[in-house]
Amino acid sequence: MSDPLKVAIAGLGTVGVGTIEVLTRNADLIAARCGRQIVVTAISALNKDKDRGIDLSSYRWFDDPIVMAVEADADVIVELIGGSSGTALDLARAAFKAGRHVVTANKALVAEVGTELAISAEKAGKTLAYEAAVAGGIPIIKALREGLAGNDIKRVIGILNGTCNYILSTMEDSGRDFADVLKDAQDLGYAEADPSFDIDGVDAAHKLAILASLSFGTKVSFKDVYVEGIRTISAIDFTYARDLGYRIKLLGLAGRTEDGVYQRVHPCLIDEEGPLASVDGSFNAVIAEGDFVGRSVYEGRGAGAGPTASAVVADIIDIAAKRFTPPLGVPAEKLTALKPVTIDQRHGAFYLRLKVVDRTGVFADIGATFRDHNISMESILQRDHDDDGNAYVVIITHAVKELDLRAALATLDANAAMVESPQVIRIENVWGE
Amino acid sequence: MSDPLKVAIAGLGTVGVGTIEVLTRNADLIAARCGRQIVVTAISALNKDKDRGIDLSSYRWFDDPIVMAVEADADVIVELIGGSSGTALDLARAAFKAGRHVVTANKALVAEVGTELAISAEKAGKTLAYEAAVAGGIPIIKALREGLAGNDIKRVIGILNGTCNYILSTMEDSGRDFADVLKDAQDLGYAEADPSFDIDGVDAAHKLAILASLSFGTKVSFKDVYVEGIRTISAIDFTYARDLGYRIKLLGLAGRTEDGVYQRVHPCLIDEEGPLASVDGSFNAVIAEGDFVGRSVYEGRGAGAGPTASAVVADIIDIAAKRFTPPLGVPAEKLTALKPVTIDQRHGAFYLRLKVVDRTGVFADIGATFRDHNISMESILQRDHDDDGNAYVVIITHAVKELDLRAALATLDANAAMVESPQVIRIENVWGE
Repeated sequence: MSDPLKVAIAGLGTVGVGTIEVLTRNADLIAARCGRQIVVTAISALNKDKDRGIDLSSYRWFDDPIVMAVEADADVIVELIGGSSGTALDLARAAFKAGRHVVTANKALVAEVGTELAISAEKAGKTLAYEAAVAGGIPIIKALREGLAGNDIKRVIGILNGTCNYILSTMEDSGRDFADVLKDAQDLGYAEADPSFDIDGVDAAHKLAILASLSFGTKVSFKDVYVEGIRTISAIDFTYARDLGYRIKLLGLAGRTEDGVYQRVHPCLIDEEGPLASVDGSFNAVIAEGDFVGRSVYEGRGAGAGPTASAVVADIIDIAAKRFTPPLGVPAEKLTALKPVTIDQRHGAFYLRLKVVDRTGVFADIGATFRDHNISMESILQRDHDDDGNAYVVIITHAVKELDLRAALATLDANAAMVESPQVIRIENVWGE
Repeated sequence: MSDPLKVAIAGLGTVGVGTIEVLTRNADLIAARCGRQIVVTAISALNKDKDRGIDLSSYRWFDDPIVMAVEADADVIVELIGGSSGTALDLARAAFKAGRHVVTANKALVAEVGTELAISAEKAGKTLAYEAAVAGGIPIIKALREGLAGNDIKRVIGILNGTCNYILSTMEDSGRDFADVLKDAQDLGYAEADPSFDIDGVDAAHKLAILASLSFGTKVSFKDVYVEGIRTISAIDFTYARDLGYRIKLLGLAGRTEDGVYQRVHPCLIDEEGPLASVDGSFNAVIAEGDFVGRSVYEGRGAGAGPTASAVVADIIDIAAKRFTPPLGVPAEKLTALKPVTIDQRHGAFYLRLKVVDRTGVFADIGATFRDHNISMESILQRDHDDDGNAYVVIITHAVKELDLRAALATLDANAAMVESPQVIRIENVWGE
């Protein structure tokens, strides 16, 4: 058996502690699988004296993780600090400079400076591994980078944020409103005190940018991700969507077209029969579509100490077993610039919910406006009335141009019969032809 | 860039031709991903002159694949002949003896002599790779062996045979009978002329034995798999199952208990809400359950030239990139003997469909029989009558002992009111707690 692989861990929150627990509890199993022991030699966190529920006395303590990256007796630095700049970035840079591998769960870091870090890793002859950064315990990075490596990947779609999926699933099941469910999620620890990073779609966008780079061989380009969150989804939208055979999910979608690569995160209506429709609660799922494999789906827990630590340890085991892959799938110098296809170029269907004054001629006005803007409708249904005599009108369009739809909505907005701005949710066909 | 990796392919059916197509069409992409060219140097098949739709003239032809394994200018021998003995086995043995890696799509071979071949591979310092042997294009071998390598795997469950899943899905959707749907599947090429290997569960059992070995670190033990096929499932069972909130799937289930490891392939009623319930047609799916990652699900096309070739090429790419894993997850000498937990030891729920003479006292008789054998019932429903005045009685039991159930059924069989032997399908909870 080879020498042990030595690991230093920066950041001792639930994932850091979870990583130590995996490496300890399954030590024999892991050693058998990778042919050598994996030992934690050093740790660093903000507060040395905090009780983390496990005995850390045998690991060398560093107050400063950057110093640890340089001075620790370690082959691998595990970065669990978070953030795309500051200490996490400095730590990764210092680790490569000191000739160490870096394993991270930090999606912001990889999404925002992943290309730079991949270059640094390759120059140092070391690896940057980040299985835990996307979809928690699901080995989706490995699947894309190795399992599907014979394929030209055409499209990748995912439920990438467990907090949003929990909130949307709960709204659907309970009929309760967003603010109410969010508060519960915060009380239960499923959402942060400041939830904006999750519910505004930024976290999902970070993950999507990473998946897009791996899938299409492009530089990681988070800034080109179109992002909409879930704050505007109402309880009534779930009712209407369900009646029409749809469910509502926050999806990340990336694909390559003749014009370039689109990357979008926004709420979607999806067919209730497809494989993502049944992914509920805090679960994540990713569909990857390759030219030979066709569609494949990966589902599992997207967050939490156990699943995330499982992914961190898988990366460490790969390093211990000397299984290396270029961090972004191909050598960083071969990555091409991502040519963005913007949301304005989308061609797809929409769900629209309009609140209108219930008087003769309103349907005709809506019909005429849509006709004038080339919006062809699959269905238009008048639904419930409110107490003031206003009616809800629900429209499902055929595939139309995003800009045409926006122009039609601008015209409608000027119509006196419109009581409020329309609800607009894109419909995505994630599975069927 | 390193020297090209040289590959010889034995067997030129759809998967062999598909493998050449993947390696040709995506050659640049693949070379970028693994850092070197992959070139096919030699081929062998039964009939040299058959038109396979692609130009094979640049590859050295061998009439005898065993000779090819020894004499070809190749680093890797790809075995696509099939069968657990005869040429396929001789070829694998010859390849290791000649110092070549072996990549195979042959589930029978790995299920029946996998441990022996893993030992041979390790002695030769070469690898045995078989991603394509289980669940087609889904990278489930890689997920279990590497992606979840930090976990102690507790249970693995899968829809592992696309032919059965296609037949069961079609029966459910159409209300048609087994024989009728099987004939259609044969006409469409989804089922073989002799379909017994698929519909009697043998193919799924081969795959399950492989997954169990990887999951539990045990020697591959196909002989210990309990196997039931789908021939006895009737159209009426789908109706009743659906009414009760279930779907019917042929599952492979393997798990570790205090008593050992169970491996079972049989039709199951599963909750219509879980992730396997929506896996239809020729798709495959696997749930793997680890102590840290929790449950994760992998779904995709389980057969066909493209998906299977995708998996074959992924294995070849791993070899080209020098990413090696012990064939069965841990070095073969560390594999333990599988201590089988037999079907007799199952403790679980059942769906029973009885056809009885519709007369006073029959319900009481059934109730008494079940009580006497410790079978507790969750529900008992009298359903449709046939033209002869017989009634169908559908019973859902609580979790009971397999042997108790069998004893109860033997007693019932002797009851004059029973018109035919009961239909018995196990109910499995594959997702919820």
